[in-house]
This record gives sequence, structure tokens and C-alpha cells, in this order.
Amino acid sequence: MSSPIDIAIVGATGTVGTALVEILEERDFPIGQLHLLARAASAGKSISFRGRNLRVRTVEAFDFAQVRLVFFAASEAVTCQYAPQARAAGCALIDLSGGLPLQQAPRVVAEVNSQVLQGLAAPFQLTSPASPAIALALVLAPLRPLMHWQRLSVTACLPVSSLGREGVAELARQTSELLNGRPVEPRLFDRQIAFNLLGRVGAIDAVGHARLERRLAEELRQVLALPELKVAASCVMAPVFFGDSLSLVVQAVQAIDLPAVQAVLEQAPGVELIEPDDCPTVVGDALGQDVAYVGRLRGGMDDARELNLWIASDNVRKGSALNAVQLAELLIKQGL
Amino acid sequence: MSSPIDIAIVGATGTVGTALVEILEERDFPIGQLHLLARAASAGKSISFRGRNLRVRTVEAFDFAQVRLVFFAASEAVTCQYAPQARAAGCALIDLSGGLPLQQAPRVVAEVNSQVLQGLAAPFQLTSPASPAIALALVLAPLRPLMHWQRLSVTACLPVSSLGREGVAELARQTSELLNGRPVEPRLFDRQIAFNLLGRVGAIDAVGHARLERRLAEELRQVLALPELKVAASCVMAPVFFGDSLSLVVQAVQAIDLPAVQAVLEQAPGVELIEPDDCPTVVGDALGQDVAYVGRLRGGMDDARELNLWIASDNVRKGSALNAVQLAELLIKQGL
Repeated sequence: MSSPIDIAIVGATGTVGTALVEILEERDFPIGQLHLLARAASAGKSISFRGRNLRVRTVEAFDFAQVRLVFFAASEAVTCQYAPQARAAGCALIDLSGGLPLQQAPRVVAEVNSQVLQGLAAPFQLTSPASPAIALALVLAPLRPLMHWQRLSVTACLPVSSLGREGVAELARQTSELLNGRPVEPRLFDRQIAFNLLGRVGAIDAVGHARLERRLAEELRQVLALPELKVAASCVMAPVFFGDSLSLVVQAVQAIDLPAVQAVLEQAPGVELIEPDDCPTVVGDALGQDVAYVGRLRGGMDDARELNLWIASDNVRKGSALNAVQLAELLIKQGL
Repeated sequence: MSSPIDIAIVGATGTVGTALVEILEERDFPIGQLHLLARAASAGKSISFRGRNLRVRTVEAFDFAQVRLVFFAASEAVTCQYAPQARAAGCALIDLSGGLPLQQAPRVVAEVNSQVLQGLAAPFQLTSPASPAIALALVLAPLRPLMHWQRLSVTACLPVSSLGREGVAELARQTSELLNGRPVEPRLFDRQIAFNLLGRVGAIDAVGHARLERRLAEELRQVLALPELKVAASCVMAPVFFGDSLSLVVQAVQAIDLPAVQAVLEQAPGVELIEPDDCPTVVGDALGQDVAYVGRLRGGMDDARELNLWIASDNVRKGSALNAVQLAELLIKQGL
């Protein structure tokens, strides 16, 4: 085991930050001092780690020279504000927000493109991709040798926890109001989210794409090392607390060998293939699990070059915190 | 105004049957006698129509010779059981279940392919397509002159009411149990539906497609009169009470003229186009409305031949009962 290293987590009180702490503990990560950081509003809380209660401190006052590795599990804005300080202090950075440019902080999924790290030198900067991109990359990467892709179309139904604790609280509040026969005033979303689906997640750019849709496509292309891959992505906010549900259509150039696809997915790391007559869901299958569940594997109704499937994945664990910790483990192997 | 005709509704107590009664009343349909029918279990209830309470009678004991037009708003099984009696009695049939074959009972969306009726002779048999097929046809039909399609990919997020009142009751029950901290035992679905998404709706055939996915593709091809159209369809059950939410990717052979698409959809019958920076939802926009709402109209991120959009539509009204009544009105014009 490597010698222990001192670590900071920026955004430690959020859903992903909390999961990071849990996973660091579960995996027996070689930590010296763990510094939990948040903006002033959330500082002062305590979080349990290896039998001790760690106090969350303000990121504003933190001296990054105290640590060698920083996880950014905060918003893009907070990440972009404090990443320069961490870099200047010589820390390795693992960003979960997507705030750092692709060129500066390559997107890496541990099971898929960890070879990227071999081309990097300290101080390291890596980004753990958006959760749907991680799940898609885990499923698609092992299929690359089997087919040449023309295009991917994905509809990603995201849970309210992708907006953090506030999203979870808002869905719970709205649902409870409605079941008690009271009218709902949406606060966090611009429409009612309880018993409803929102066809837009976050702001839309000048030509109509959401930032997350762009991020998903760009990260997939980088992780799969297919810069020309065509991706149609639609992100939808669903009245679900946790877990990404992805409906994927793969169009290949030639007819798809379904038994070969099935055989490959049965062996793929980080993937659990469900029997064709069943279908995985986030609640009951994916939540709390470290693999992306795949179901509804089928060809096209009218096109032999088409592959359809459904993915259910934990957006907080496998889709965020676990991959980030796996990246840290890889950096340690590389002599962080 | 035509002379009044006697009508029966089979499945009058279900969500769609109830909406049929409402719409017949709203539209001042020329009805003589209205016979409300259901299986024995639901018979005996009363439903208000034009200020009178009509008693629901058993379909088993009904003599179809009493009426000239029958709406089948029951299950496929009930429809297939009683359609032959109605036919033998010389009735016109309008099926909402999809139980009758495409050749026997053509799929018609009033605004799209009503010209089909000109080739038919009495006794008439028509099918009102599945609700997502109606919404898609309304949006796609006016675009046909603008582009030649290579393929459509749709992820249809369906509400629990697509399974009728039992679906609605089950989502309400599960949600309430969970909010009260009690464990959920799924009854109607094989997994928890509250705060979850099911990637499978109904039974799956030998090659993995759901019956509804097949129906959607076949009906779209027939309504749009494009027998070669390639359709990838995935139906998802969402924790939503009413309204279909559809994520659609259109692939055309040539680059798409987005301003022209927008101009056409602004004028299209049965369609309401929402501003690009907003996005319609079923709750708050589509429910109770007689149009399909379209939003998130945008090109591809990396392909000028791609069109993406989002549709929110009332599955019970516009998606079922209203179109069926519109078909009946067309039949009356044709001398039913």
C-alpha cells in the first residue's frame, strides 16, 4: 500500500461529496489527513469518517498547500473559482463538476480510458465525466471492437439528485403537497416536477442544446477516443430521486451481431447485463451498486444495423463518486 | 346537422371511455341514444351525459343491432371478443384498443390521413392509433413536404393512466406509502413505479420489442403513408399520472431547414409550438388540451440532417378520445 496522502474534498456536504467520503472509507484509500470543505453556508457541519467526526471547514479560508490531492465535488462555478489555487499549490485535481476544459483536465472513466494517464505528468488534473457519460462509456467501450458506429441517440432521464440535495428536497416537498391536496408552487424548477417530466435540464444555448447535452456528447467522444462520433442527446428531468435511466439507440455501419454483443456485455467490467425478458430500474437494481445495469438489449425493428438498450445506473456512486475515487487510485499508482 | 344516431361505448367506465362521454357532450355530437357498456364487474355505475345519469350496462347482454356506431374503448381482448358481434349487426366500429388488424381497421388521425375514409365503404371500421402515435403523426405529417426521412428514433415516456384507472391508483398508492415511510409492494407493475422509471411497458416479443413499440411504428407508417419508414421506438413507464412525453430524433437525408420547420409547425393543425427557450410539460401544458405541444426544437449537435424535439400530449383526450370522436364525425359526414 502507498504511503498515506493528505486530501481535500471541496463540496463535501453535497450528495456527491458525501458519497465520496463513504467510498473513500469503504475502499480503504490511503488517506493521511482528510479535509472536508464547503462554502461558508454549509461549513460547520460534521461528517463521520473512520469512526471520527470531521468538521466541514470553509473552502474560502483553506490553504491548499496542506494537501496533495483535491476532489472538486462542488458546482462548476465553485470549482472554477478554487481550482487555480489548488493548482498553484501543486495539488493533483480530480474534478466532478465538468467545470475544467477538456484539454486541461481529460475526461477519464477508470474501466475505459485509464491509459490516458500514462501521457500525463504531475501536477495531474482529471475530470470524472457526467454520470450518464460514465454509464454510456462503460457499456459502449467494450462494443467498439464489434462495430463501427454511425451515430448514437440517447434520451437521458435524470433524477432530481443531479441537482443535489435541493433537487431531492423539492421533489419530496411537491409530491407531499400534491398528495395532501394542496397546490404546488414550483421553486427549484420552472414547472412542477412531481408526477411530471421536464424536457429541459439547465440552460439552453443559442441553438437549443442544453449544456449537459453538450457535455455528454463531448465527454463520450473523448472517453471513447472517437472524436468524430455523432451523438444526439436529450436530457430529461424525471420525478425520480436517484439514478440515471438511459434509453440508447446505436446505429452501426453494418449489421449487428447481437449474440456477440450479449457475450461481450456479460463480461464487461462495470456492467451488469439483465436477461432480455426483464428490465433493470434505478430503484431496486442500480441504486447503491457499483455497476451500470443494462437491459432491453435488442436489435432494430426494421434495421439490422441498429441496437437498442436501456441503462439504469446510480448517478451518485458509479456515476460520480466511485469513478472519481478510482481515478485517484490510478493517480496514486502513477506516483502522485 | 345530421340526424341523430344511436351509439354504444364499450369500456365506458375506463379513463378513455369517460373522456369519450365528455368529448361527445362538449362537441355537441348528434347522438340519439347513448349506450354505456362495460364488463359485468363495472356495470351498474352511472355516468352523467347532457344532464341525465346514464346507467352502465353489461356488454355481455347488449344487442348491437340497437346502435349504428360503436366505440371500443376497452382492452384489446374485450374489443376482439365483441367487435364481431358489432360488425355482424352492421355497426360502424371505431377501435381505440389497437386490437383489430391494420388491414381490417385502418389507423386514422383526423388531421393527418382522413382521406383514407374516401376509399372505404360501410360498414366502416377505423382504429384511432395509440396515443404516442397520434402525437407523433400530428407533428411529423406537416414536415413531410420539407424533408425525406432516413429514420425516426423515439423514446416515449408514458403515464400510468395508459394502463387505465388501475395504473393511476397504483402510482398514488405506492407514492403515498413511500412518503409515509412504509415499504412498497408493487402490485400492478413488476417493480416499484413511484419515483422510478420502468424501461419496459407490457410484454416483450421473442426478439425483445414490446407490443406497444411495434404498434407505434406500424401505426406511424400507416398514418403517414410511409410504409418504408424506419422507426426505433422505446416505451418507458414514468411515475406520471397523465400525459405522454416524447423525445424524438428525426434523421433526414439532407440538411434540415430549421426556420422552415418552425414556420410549418407554427401553422400545423393540432400542434402548439413552444418558444425555443421554454419547454412544454404534460402537467401544466398538455393536460386537458386538444393539441400536442412541441418544444426543444433544435438541429443536431454534429449533424445538419438531424432534428430533435420534445412533445407533451394528453394521452386520454388528444391521444385517444378526441381523435376517436373526430373519426366518428368524419364517418357521419360520409353518410354513416
